[in-house]
Amino acid sequence: NHKLKLFTLNANEPLAQEVADVIGRPLGECSVKRFSDGEVQINIEESIRGCDVFVIQSTSYPVNDNLMELLIMIDALRRASARTINVVMPYYGYARQDRKARSREPITAKLVANLLEKAGADRVIAMDLHAPQIQGFFDIPIDHLVAVPLLSDYFKNQGFKGDDIVIVSPDHGGVTRARKMADRLKAPIAIIDKRRPRPNVSEVMNIVGQVDGKIAILIDDIIDTAGTITAGANAIIESGAKEVYACCTHPVLSGPAIQRIEDSQIKELVITNTIELPEDKNSPKIKQLSIAKLIGDAIVRVFEEKSVSTLFD
Amino acid sequence: NHKLKLFTLNANEPLAQEVADVIGRPLGECSVKRFSDGEVQINIEESIRGCDVFVIQSTSYPVNDNLMELLIMIDALRRASARTINVVMPYYGYARQDRKARSREPITAKLVANLLEKAGADRVIAMDLHAPQIQGFFDIPIDHLVAVPLLSDYFKNQGFKGDDIVIVSPDHGGVTRARKMADRLKAPIAIIDKRRPRPNVSEVMNIVGQVDGKIAILIDDIIDTAGTITAGANAIIESGAKEVYACCTHPVLSGPAIQRIEDSQIKELVITNTIELPEDKNSPKIKQLSIAKLIGDAIVRVFEEKSVSTLFD
Ligand SMILES: Nc1ncnc2c1ncn2[C@@H]1O[C@H](COP(=O)(O)O)[C@@H](O)[C@H]1O
Ligand SMILES: Nc1ncnc2c1ncn2[C@@H]1O[C@H](COP(=O)(O)O)[C@@H](O)[C@H]1O
Repeated sequence: NHKLKLFTLNANEPLAQEVADVIGRPLGECSVKRFSDGEVQINIEESIRGCDVFVIQSTSYPVNDNLMELLIMIDALRRASARTINVVMPYYGYARQDRKARSREPITAKLVANLLEKAGADRVIAMDLHAPQIQGFFDIPIDHLVAVPLLSDYFKNQGFKGDDIVIVSPDHGGVTRARKMADRLKAPIAIIDKRRPRPNVSEVMNIVGQVDGKIAILIDDIIDTAGTITAGANAIIESGAKEVYACCTHPVLSGPAIQRIEDSQIKELVITNTIELPEDKNSPKIKQLSIAKLIGDAIVRVFEEKSVSTLFD
Repeated sequence: NHKLKLFTLNANEPLAQEVADVIGRPLGECSVKRFSDGEVQINIEESIRGCDVFVIQSTSYPVNDNLMELLIMIDALRRASARTINVVMPYYGYARQDRKARSREPITAKLVANLLEKAGADRVIAMDLHAPQIQGFFDIPIDHLVAVPLLSDYFKNQGFKGDDIVIVSPDHGGVTRARKMADRLKAPIAIIDKRRPRPNVSEVMNIVGQVDGKIAILIDDIIDTAGTITAGANAIIESGAKEVYACCTHPVLSGPAIQRIEDSQIKELVITNTIELPEDKNSPKIKQLSIAKLIGDAIVRVFEEKSVSTLFD
């Protein structure tokens, strides 16, 4: 008999509104502003005492502001006697800082997990974390959604399947993801294998698998500056593919990304809306799919204490 | 036989350099940059294993970036086996969010304390915290420095003392601070008492104490938009004071602050360098004093495990 309440912060309001529509409840009243000196000012404007509260916030650019909004909101919810605080992070910033690649580096993805728990989060719903190990950074339950079914269905509905196509992983780290998409489209896979033959010699791209004469679909979790994906796409065309498409879950698209995509051989880039695309990041080549149904269903299942993983694996 | 290492992040490098000069040690090598998508990238470029590390960072504007730099640095230092991690925060951002003024507000000053501890800070050196209660938000030792002696000495050296002057607190919260300054200058105090006679009627400023014919010195901890201090200064002149000066520890100076100060009756505003003043925030009316000696002495005493409070009370 406790109640579900859904709140959004400033990172991705359009997605939060869509999720609210999916689950058929309004977004909670909450003012999230800035004081004159830039400090975050939050006031929750309705009672949440005893409620199961879900807060939607991607820690995308500007990552530090969005993360602090989230931590401060969790603090306010806890002090206002929420029954449970469920953090919905469609995009989890700092996920790439998930290990010490060099000595004396931080592991910021773990720090963020610690900060969320310390602030008072009871549960996290995340999506396509850069490394599945990040789930282990939390001591609270974490539900992990994946976009592969959504992305695969999009291509399947365009008639892309079977041996005419090939799913390509842009690096070794992404092979599992490519394999999952290939299974759904009953297609083979290929892998881009980057090697530096000698130190101070530029990288060579070698494609492991057959792309000649096929329609290739590159899949990655994050596209940031788009260097890897566009270089990969061009290499695929040089190896004789007919056409190349790309897709990813998280469209970070920083710096030269849009220009690179427009200048590349990529015919269409399919992304999701885990991150809101600012107007200046749009391009006729980009097709954005919504994860609102996925997130909405996950929220309802968590609220009803049903398993989330069975729904999306 | 362990070593002291001093690092700075991006908030206030000039102060950190001055502190390094005071204690006669170089700043540690550390790169603090941004990835293309705005995420903080820190790499500590010298060994700190077994060292007592001091990190100087004010969480001034942009507060969320500066705070995240600090938390990530602490994470990196802890993983790199620092013996102790001592956080020097000349300005402690979010200090004004130190209580629930309305229902369902966060207490962000406490959240920040929790985050610093969770990240791995062993000790904090702070200065003129907005409320002394913030010391109680920490479970780790905190040393609390005050700027009153520095500010008082400045005025004393100009010949300001005794019954020709009056130290004015701009509100009830600041009376203790004004009293301390008055003791040092052997001067009387006055208090600006703001009242709203009826709802929806503008505030009336009433000066409790004698300012007529005197040189008044307003003292506050933070000057942010400068609304309070400039209105107070003008009221003091209207009440017959000969001249009015103002001073504070933390020059936040956001929004209309500089314009208001220039347009006001304030003859000179004396501030410290807990916050670095950007060029566009300068004014011929502003005099900035350095706290480098104070901070440097505190660092050395903490390192030598001597009492800090005896030095600055
Ligand atoms: N925001 C970021 N942008 C670019 N590179 C990053 C970012 N965060 C971490 N990294 C680096 O990316 C590498 C991890 O990426 P990956 O090999 O794809 O898992 C590490 O060397 C990190 O230092
Ligand atoms: N950064 C800020 N700028 C302006 N006001 C703030 C800020 N942070 C907190 N406050 C408000 O300032 C009040 C506390 O200030 P004070 O009464 O001077 O202790 C509270 O009502 C806060 O909501």
